[in-house]
Amino acid sequence: MSAQTESLADSAERADIESLPAFGVWVPPLTPVGPDLAPDKERLLAHLRWLLECGCHGLAVFGTTSEANSFTLDERIELLEAMVESGISPAQLMVGTGCCAVPDSIRLTRHAAGLGCKKVLMLPPFYYKGVSDTGLFDSFARVIDGVGDPELKIILYHFPKMSAVPITSTLIERLVAAYPQTVVGVKDSSGDWSNAVALREQFPQLAIFPGTEKFLLDGLELGSAGCLTATANVNPAAIRGVFDAWRKGSADVRERQDFIDGTRKIFDGHPLVATLKHAVAHFRGDPDWRRVRPPLVGCDESAWAQVREELAAQSFVFPD
Amino acid sequence: MSAQTESLADSAERADIESLPAFGVWVPPLTPVGPDLAPDKERLLAHLRWLLECGCHGLAVFGTTSEANSFTLDERIELLEAMVESGISPAQLMVGTGCCAVPDSIRLTRHAAGLGCKKVLMLPPFYYKGVSDTGLFDSFARVIDGVGDPELKIILYHFPKMSAVPITSTLIERLVAAYPQTVVGVKDSSGDWSNAVALREQFPQLAIFPGTEKFLLDGLELGSAGCLTATANVNPAAIRGVFDAWRKGSADVRERQDFIDGTRKIFDGHPLVATLKHAVAHFRGDPDWRRVRPPLVGCDESAWAQVREELAAQSFVFPD
Repeated sequence: MSAQTESLADSAERADIESLPAFGVWVPPLTPVGPDLAPDKERLLAHLRWLLECGCHGLAVFGTTSEANSFTLDERIELLEAMVESGISPAQLMVGTGCCAVPDSIRLTRHAAGLGCKKVLMLPPFYYKGVSDTGLFDSFARVIDGVGDPELKIILYHFPKMSAVPITSTLIERLVAAYPQTVVGVKDSSGDWSNAVALREQFPQLAIFPGTEKFLLDGLELGSAGCLTATANVNPAAIRGVFDAWRKGSADVRERQDFIDGTRKIFDGHPLVATLKHAVAHFRGDPDWRRVRPPLVGCDESAWAQVREELAAQSFVFPD
Repeated sequence: MSAQTESLADSAERADIESLPAFGVWVPPLTPVGPDLAPDKERLLAHLRWLLECGCHGLAVFGTTSEANSFTLDERIELLEAMVESGISPAQLMVGTGCCAVPDSIRLTRHAAGLGCKKVLMLPPFYYKGVSDTGLFDSFARVIDGVGDPELKIILYHFPKMSAVPITSTLIERLVAAYPQTVVGVKDSSGDWSNAVALREQFPQLAIFPGTEKFLLDGLELGSAGCLTATANVNPAAIRGVFDAWRKGSADVRERQDFIDGTRKIFDGHPLVATLKHAVAHFRGDPDWRRVRPPLVGCDESAWAQVREELAAQSFVFPD
């Protein structure tokens, strides 16, 4: 624990994390697709079961890693229904529902909540750039009011490099003040540690999920909720291991963190979704897993050869 | 005509413009909404009729100025049907159909083409940033192949500041080579004159529409198709006047261009959609026109007072 984070960590009881609406290691699952690029429901459900068996606390479905915006609303609705029907607990789901059009966000959020999935991960409307906090506040407010579910829990999705529409602390402050029971967290995919620190200081009541396991241990020490990370699609057990070691106060927790950092670094230099799909395809011996929907493109073989070699050199193990 | 553009202009017969799939002054119409922010069909149809009566060659519906991405697909489909049913010629429509998800783009494009609207203005999928030309080519190709209409004419929509997904000359080259009968134009909303020149040089066969009337006369001299500009929502007749003066070789064409430049400059310092809606509301005495959908916010009164004063100082006339 760094000196910088000591005071906050002291005030954060390790047991308190359970009082958050969500905590631990959450994974945004990859979406396998068939030869016609339609969602492959069976492969997806099998992957979700595996992720939970490997220790993920929950599934943050329909985010960036799921290629959610490359699927229609009807496709997403059908997949979510299949997940719940397959026996996945709605409590273990956090559903991406933020669209460019407010009525679309209302539709997806209402549908998820209707299935019992009360936790949603919400992008801001992301077509218009340079919009004001007032315009974004109004967008979120209209979705919350439009859905009208008092049990709804929104985790705001801040991914400025991808959405190009940042969720500022001023906006969070306004939303939390207006909807304290509903706006309960932030997924911080800025990749900027100082933003995680600032969010935690300004909003101690919120569940803050860094978007990478690089910040898992430091974030937990700081009082964050855990992490919500794409690489948990291939490395779920080891990432969960860091969380458990932290909770138990194990001596090897930093060593475990260093190990998952090493794996993450290997993927970070490559297009994440395509490379992770290629990795799943490789380790499962199932080439069908490689496909992505455009505008993404598949991982090329030479890039994959490099990743594979680096993973082997690090004694990376894909869990059974 | 500048020395830079002389050689190109010499090769561009003024009558040749009629051989382009679209030419002249195209307007992306504002979308009026009711108190519940639902589209106001009657006000919209009246506005469209007025724009055509004022001389717009065509209506580029469901673009950025129309707030298209803030409306659901069903809302857009219903509005387009209302336009065609109201008697607007499909030949005078260019329909925005580019979505993040390829199946959505196919659905909108097929619907438009089915109504006889064969010209579509297509954004690239705009959620993922930093994607490759190959991924974008594949996206457009899947839409074209998926729609499967040999009469389809696509105008690529390049608006890097808004979509944050540029359409590069390499991508255009690949698309034109693969689909020479279908990919027929570019709307260039880069605001960069050098890009207009480069596009015209590299793709003399395409209809190039600058996204602002600032480049109308210089663009026509260069061999561009005209312009496709938001401010035509309030200044359609004067912008059309420049086009007509150019075709007739009138001595006052540059003076006319200077005049529309002056009006454009007044709006350019303000959020364009909200300010244009406020202007329409003002000149029609119809405050309902002011509403925008979030994440946009309405034009504030002090900003509007400034715009109004500057328009008056310029003797701007809103056409009857």
